[in-house]
Amino acid sequence: MPISLGELATQFGCELIGDPDVVVDDVASLHNAGPGSLTFLASPAFREYLNSTRAAAVIVRSADAEGVPTAALINDNPYACYARMAAVIRPAPVYEPGVHSSAVVAATATISDTAHIAANAQIGDRSSIGHNSYIGPGCVVGTDCAVGDDCRLIANVTLVKKVILGARVIVNPGVVIGADGFGNAMTDDGWVKIPQLGGVQIGDDVEIGANSTVDCGALGDTILEDGVRLDNLVMIGHTVRVGAHTAMAAMAGIGGSTVIGKRCQFAGMSGTVGHVTICDDVVVNGQGMISKDVTEPGTYASSYPSAKVREWNQMVARVRRLDVLAERVRKLEKGSK
Amino acid sequence: MPISLGELATQFGCELIGDPDVVVDDVASLHNAGPGSLTFLASPAFREYLNSTRAAAVIVRSADAEGVPTAALINDNPYACYARMAAVIRPAPVYEPGVHSSAVVAATATISDTAHIAANAQIGDRSSIGHNSYIGPGCVVGTDCAVGDDCRLIANVTLVKKVILGARVIVNPGVVIGADGFGNAMTDDGWVKIPQLGGVQIGDDVEIGANSTVDCGALGDTILEDGVRLDNLVMIGHTVRVGAHTAMAAMAGIGGSTVIGKRCQFAGMSGTVGHVTICDDVVVNGQGMISKDVTEPGTYASSYPSAKVREWNQMVARVRRLDVLAERVRKLEKGSK
Amino acid sequence: MPISLGELATQFGCELIGDPDVVVDDVASLHNAGPGSLTFLASPAFREYLNSTRAAAVIVRSADAEGVPTAALINDNPYACYARMAAVIRPAPVYEPGVHSSAVVAATATISDTAHIAANAQIGDRSSIGHNSYIGPGCVVGTDCAVGDDCRLIANVTLVKKVILGARVIVNPGVVIGADGFGNAMTDDGWVKIPQLGGVQIGDDVEIGANSTVDCGALGDTILEDGVRLDNLVMIGHTVRVGAHTAMAAMAGIGGSTVIGKRCQFAGMSGTVGHVTICDDVVVNGQGMISKDVTEPGTYASSYPSAKVREWNQMVARVRRLDVLAERVRKLEKGSK
Repeated sequence: MPISLGELATQFGCELIGDPDVVVDDVASLHNAGPGSLTFLASPAFREYLNSTRAAAVIVRSADAEGVPTAALINDNPYACYARMAAVIRPAPVYEPGVHSSAVVAATATISDTAHIAANAQIGDRSSIGHNSYIGPGCVVGTDCAVGDDCRLIANVTLVKKVILGARVIVNPGVVIGADGFGNAMTDDGWVKIPQLGGVQIGDDVEIGANSTVDCGALGDTILEDGVRLDNLVMIGHTVRVGAHTAMAAMAGIGGSTVIGKRCQFAGMSGTVGHVTICDDVVVNGQGMISKDVTEPGTYASSYPSAKVREWNQMVARVRRLDVLAERVRKLEKGSK
Repeated sequence: MPISLGELATQFGCELIGDPDVVVDDVASLHNAGPGSLTFLASPAFREYLNSTRAAAVIVRSADAEGVPTAALINDNPYACYARMAAVIRPAPVYEPGVHSSAVVAATATISDTAHIAANAQIGDRSSIGHNSYIGPGCVVGTDCAVGDDCRLIANVTLVKKVILGARVIVNPGVVIGADGFGNAMTDDGWVKIPQLGGVQIGDDVEIGANSTVDCGALGDTILEDGVRLDNLVMIGHTVRVGAHTAMAAMAGIGGSTVIGKRCQFAGMSGTVGHVTICDDVVVNGQGMISKDVTEPGTYASSYPSAKVREWNQMVARVRRLDVLAERVRKLEKGSK
Repeated sequence: MPISLGELATQFGCELIGDPDVVVDDVASLHNAGPGSLTFLASPAFREYLNSTRAAAVIVRSADAEGVPTAALINDNPYACYARMAAVIRPAPVYEPGVHSSAVVAATATISDTAHIAANAQIGDRSSIGHNSYIGPGCVVGTDCAVGDDCRLIANVTLVKKVILGARVIVNPGVVIGADGFGNAMTDDGWVKIPQLGGVQIGDDVEIGANSTVDCGALGDTILEDGVRLDNLVMIGHTVRVGAHTAMAAMAGIGGSTVIGKRCQFAGMSGTVGHVTICDDVVVNGQGMISKDVTEPGTYASSYPSAKVREWNQMVARVRRLDVLAERVRKLEKGSK
């Protein structure tokens, strides 16, 4: 949607340096932007592109305003400001209310008049779909689920049972919420399945990435608080609780019954074992594995940077002979006495 | 389903200490249980909740019976006993036999009269569905597949081709069984795909977690023996064999042609390379990677516990300078001669 | 399809040692092959089975021809030669052109007369499906997508929007291409979603394994060049570029905006952080994590081999006390002066 720089500045509370009547109708990166585009400078790594940008306007911190060769929109958080302006200039698709003729809706389900139920979607018994929500093609909303207002289930999503979504939740394709957790008791005859009887509660403004899985609780519920962000292929075990605004990058995995605080960040392929508690404001680096309670905010790590395989193997060999080295030092100490 | 403690004791061979006419109609954890609930004490970690539980009855080992403030059901394996009783008190949903009008069933497929084929499910040529089995919404059963009796494919499951499931197999949403394995031969013109011609054989009482994948065999079959349990997002490569009652937690991955023994346990994010053989009763810890044959039962590990990033980085730096340290020790040894 | 050894030799340019009129109608491994089967010897590990094979013919390098007890087809690359011959003997299934009555095709979509659209598949607005392409059951092709000629989307695949596939692309079940990448800006009110506005470009002869995800670009496109091969549960972040003929084994993960060269190989559970550049011909070993630019071809590693847990824990303890050991060495050095 085309919009003038003046309108943007007013709507989002930015100072504008430049012509308020200039209209932008697209967004782009600094180095790819053309004359109708809005762009932004958030990271110093991209400052080299600032001088030569052909954008109509750049969102910058005031400290960077001087270097902008075009119009500048001044904001303390250019990346977030860009995100909000981009959502206006390039809005998400809008869907007509209604239920596609191929969708299968249970007689006991409740669908808002303003919701859109796409082709081949299914809504199960006693489930409800809120106002303006979009249930995409092939999605299966099982039994006793409640999808809040303004949610988007993109496509081929499965909510199994007793899954409650707040408002403005985005669920990407292939996500499975509310499947049985991994509960098994060993006996002389092999494993016996522990019935997984809980549900899943998901707060407002949560987004879940493609093909991630969030299991139902074993007895209580699995809970994702408001503002949680999960990337693709993330795994949340049964009866986990994830605090508000915690974010997890792709392939992070959280073991059953673990409790995670607010504003934590898990990098790719990181995770926790089950039954641990992690306080607020903890960052776990890539491939980091948390195996006991974390009571102190801060950044945690447990993975090595890559090296050329020859160097790496030499290093591993040295580590495996550390006992020999320690023994040699012990002998020297004895001898030096 | 409400049931009296007397009936439970008789049906599952437990000693009952308390009133046999007390009826339970729910299950719960020790600390959340209310007056109509059955609960259990399996791990000493929860003993602190025993005294104050408000449950109607607690399943305990005889050694713990004394501390139970309510009725006690005595069993050597309280967790498994709980699982079996819970399956009676809170039974899995039952589905009416029949094929939904929106399901697409090939003319050459065979569906038991007692099976339930849900909306938008598809059954391909020459495939069969056994007695009392449930094929959930959006499931695709491909060609030449055989689903045994009492199976449950929850929703949006894909069996590609030549997939044989035993009895009582549970397949959670998003699982893909029988897709092509990763076989490619390098040539001067790039990769050439190796045709993946085998099938998948899955035994009785297997459960597979959400969004896991089990590839078809390259030439022979991929095999999961009876009682195997896979958590979510697990990957089983082509022509792998997994022994009976082996369990794998979330995000475990097994490389092609690997053979795994019985009663093994793989923790989260652990795995093996391809073409290795692992004996019975092997446990692999979280993120552990098995890269050669394992011939001795026991527990294996290869990952570090997390540390604060500053300490971690210092430790990594020291490890990378181990050659320097070893050289210094060598010089000292020389000097001390 | 039955074919004579003479025809195979001619069609694929091999020397044949043996009777050209012998017909093969199946393929098998060396040790399982029966009288009508073609097999191959690619790796020395299998040479022990050569003598006793009951195959009709074996594809071998000329150096191995002497040991073949049956007919021999001589080729420099027996594995690739086997792959090509197997594709003739056991061809992939062929589908009649047409659109299944339960498929849902947008009025603005374009479907080739020779394409097959299976049951419950969906083709969205302004999308096109090329000649001889197969869109399997339950697949969702979203808006503004273009599927090239001779592609196969096996089942339950989701292409979200603006996804362009070249020719002969194979997409296995559960794959999601073009979902929103993980872009969030932190504010005082929590995360703000960065609109994900790009598409995905996939070249010719690409194959993507089951339940993998390839996100759309944030502003530009995510790109997989010709001949890329991805195994199952692989994650490609937004705006990544993967060079031609690069292969990634299961559970590899590539962070956003990373650029990967041609002919690279990523082993299982390996990956990169975001925003790094990796040159051509880089191999990353299993669980290896690349966290900065790689400018030199070769093999990189960062994971330890597994050990028995007792030994492993001792080794970890020694590593964590390396500072103490270094201090002891320092003292010895001081004393020896």
